[in-house]
Amino acid sequence: MPLLVQKYGGTSVGSIERIEAVADKVIVYKEQGNDMVIVLSAMSGETNRLMALASEITPKPKGRELDVLLTTGEQVTIALLAMALVKRGYPAKSYTGGQVRIVTDSAHNKARIKSIDNENIRKDLDEGTIVVVAGFQGVDEESNITTLGRGGSDTTGVALAAALEADECQIFTDVDGVYTTDPRVVPNATRLNTITFEEMLEMASLGSKVLQIRAVEFAQKYNVPLRVLSSFKAGEGTLITSEYEAGDIMEQALISGIAFNRDEAQLTVNGVSDTPGIAYKILGPISDANIEVDMILQNVSADGSTDFTFTVHRNDYDAALESLNKTAKELNARVVSGNNRIAKISIVGVGMRSHAGIASRMFELLAKEGINILMISTSEIKVSVVVDEKYLELGVRALHDGFELESES
Amino acid sequence: MPLLVQKYGGTSVGSIERIEAVADKVIVYKEQGNDMVIVLSAMSGETNRLMALASEITPKPKGRELDVLLTTGEQVTIALLAMALVKRGYPAKSYTGGQVRIVTDSAHNKARIKSIDNENIRKDLDEGTIVVVAGFQGVDEESNITTLGRGGSDTTGVALAAALEADECQIFTDVDGVYTTDPRVVPNATRLNTITFEEMLEMASLGSKVLQIRAVEFAQKYNVPLRVLSSFKAGEGTLITSEYEAGDIMEQALISGIAFNRDEAQLTVNGVSDTPGIAYKILGPISDANIEVDMILQNVSADGSTDFTFTVHRNDYDAALESLNKTAKELNARVVSGNNRIAKISIVGVGMRSHAGIASRMFELLAKEGINILMISTSEIKVSVVVDEKYLELGVRALHDGFELESES
Repeated sequence: MPLLVQKYGGTSVGSIERIEAVADKVIVYKEQGNDMVIVLSAMSGETNRLMALASEITPKPKGRELDVLLTTGEQVTIALLAMALVKRGYPAKSYTGGQVRIVTDSAHNKARIKSIDNENIRKDLDEGTIVVVAGFQGVDEESNITTLGRGGSDTTGVALAAALEADECQIFTDVDGVYTTDPRVVPNATRLNTITFEEMLEMASLGSKVLQIRAVEFAQKYNVPLRVLSSFKAGEGTLITSEYEAGDIMEQALISGIAFNRDEAQLTVNGVSDTPGIAYKILGPISDANIEVDMILQNVSADGSTDFTFTVHRNDYDAALESLNKTAKELNARVVSGNNRIAKISIVGVGMRSHAGIASRMFELLAKEGINILMISTSEIKVSVVVDEKYLELGVRALHDGFELESES
Repeated sequence: MPLLVQKYGGTSVGSIERIEAVADKVIVYKEQGNDMVIVLSAMSGETNRLMALASEITPKPKGRELDVLLTTGEQVTIALLAMALVKRGYPAKSYTGGQVRIVTDSAHNKARIKSIDNENIRKDLDEGTIVVVAGFQGVDEESNITTLGRGGSDTTGVALAAALEADECQIFTDVDGVYTTDPRVVPNATRLNTITFEEMLEMASLGSKVLQIRAVEFAQKYNVPLRVLSSFKAGEGTLITSEYEAGDIMEQALISGIAFNRDEAQLTVNGVSDTPGIAYKILGPISDANIEVDMILQNVSADGSTDFTFTVHRNDYDAALESLNKTAKELNARVVSGNNRIAKISIVGVGMRSHAGIASRMFELLAKEGINILMISTSEIKVSVVVDEKYLELGVRALHDGFELESES
């Protein structure tokens, strides 16, 4: 019998009415002849409510106790869904992370899954029971309650699917799939039927926040077919799978989608003498200040000195600039400059590996619209450009049209 | 180092402010050189909120799932108290019932404790950690979450005190001890410094609802000194202990207190032929209808037939009367009569064992006030009378005065 692991997010279980709707949906899949394991988040708003209680006590709650507190959110929804299923005449059983046993390391608030005991679940499934598991949580070796960090329910779903060798892990969310780009920017953006794990990872890290990156990595590692669907709208969603399996369908596609990120800021040091260790000297203090760096570029300038550029989140711009000015003085750099009104646009696609000229086609499309490119960075399945933020929408639309990603309808 | 187990009820942890106050209080005891184990209920109102969620789904939620749902209430408060203690610089660790392991039978919603593993707690205490345990909950042998039934947190406290051989189990509640009678009826009722388990059991079952009967039974069985104190008011409270230990202090006291119960109804069958099995024939159908019977009296009448009387909760009067009329017909009884406007008054005290004349003194005091006694029932440490409900307050005050229970102040 095929086994499906389905994960429903906070909005999907945000009220009793919606929990009842999830029960109805689960039963449809069960009646189609599937064994069913359901992973749930807390009701939307509940985690914030619990966090607020904790912060009334202390701004820095102890990680162990915060986990004990937050995990009650999913424990409520799993019990309610199991009740709703039993009411409909379907045997169902809820499990907390500790009851399954989903064993993690002891890094409270951001634990990583080490192993999953699937014995109880297997037994239940064999008896025809629908199994409902609390997402986001586990226990360490000493049975202390841990959480996987916000959004960790996706990871629970994928990990369970891997442990149970499920046929598919289906993530129900408030969007109906992965799109070629953000439909708010390009109204005729198309839902993708399939995308590879690699492409999805590039899309996710670039701001298409449909799935937790970590869940996708996990799915890729264990080769779990992952499908994103809407809780509220019928449809096939988007299947995220390994390149090999997606190969046939995707042969024609050069690029899968266009990702973008508004909140970038760029910092540059010009005229640094090009000696070993220069990158570390510049970025060391930035990373010490806990600032995350996105793109890093280094260019040789005419006089043998080098120009060094990197981008950070816009919120970190001021702190990064301060740090950089200090470093530049020590390095006798000529000029420090920056720009916090930039945006990044990326085209993503496994197809570009075997097709030359994708990057130059991108630059051509942008040039036609009079968009000046400030920076370029490439990886195997991605080309990113940095432009003035005012060109973001125009650039995304030009690329979406130029690469013919628009939907047929 | 002395070990105290303290239990705080829902009102005592009903808000963040109150949880902070509990933390302060716990630290006072800790600083006095005690090892501390704290048992908590859910925030007042939380269990009702969760019950309401469940009943939105189904009027008859599955017991197993209801327990998964309800136990989140205490899990929230233990985490919050542990945070508050850590904030104050005191190492603290929270434990759910399952984490301790408090192992119960599998009777969901009304489970009974079978064993407690105290290894983890012992280790924490040895390291100076304050241990905070969720009341009301446990797990069965298969690690299914169970609850002990409403108010079960008292039982958790006593059971932990027994397992850890604590020096005292202190139940913090919204009253500051056990009184000679209800201060709302007799304003100068006195707080008792000590009372025996047996007396407390008689008082509790008669309507002085300070403690769960079950917790008192448990404390008696394992001889755990039990103290009732106020969360909000300083004071020694009332120590409930075995007769032997309480002996010295109580030598002079004939009776400890006066309990009463307003919600009684009485039913009588007159003129039943006195044959074996008659009591069963009358009470069988009553118990089949899930009606709880309180007092049972059987008297011989002049003609060799018998009069049979019992009392039930006033809410069950109509159902009991209907059942009784049916039975009476089958038994050819002469008359069925009833009264649902009665009240029960009891005097309780181990002292009456060794002092004759307590009962007759009681009857004398009531007669002086012109109160007619409808029924009398006695046990070793208790005399109960049933009177017309309009005499309840008058009777309680007359007895309280007559037995000189008033406070000195």
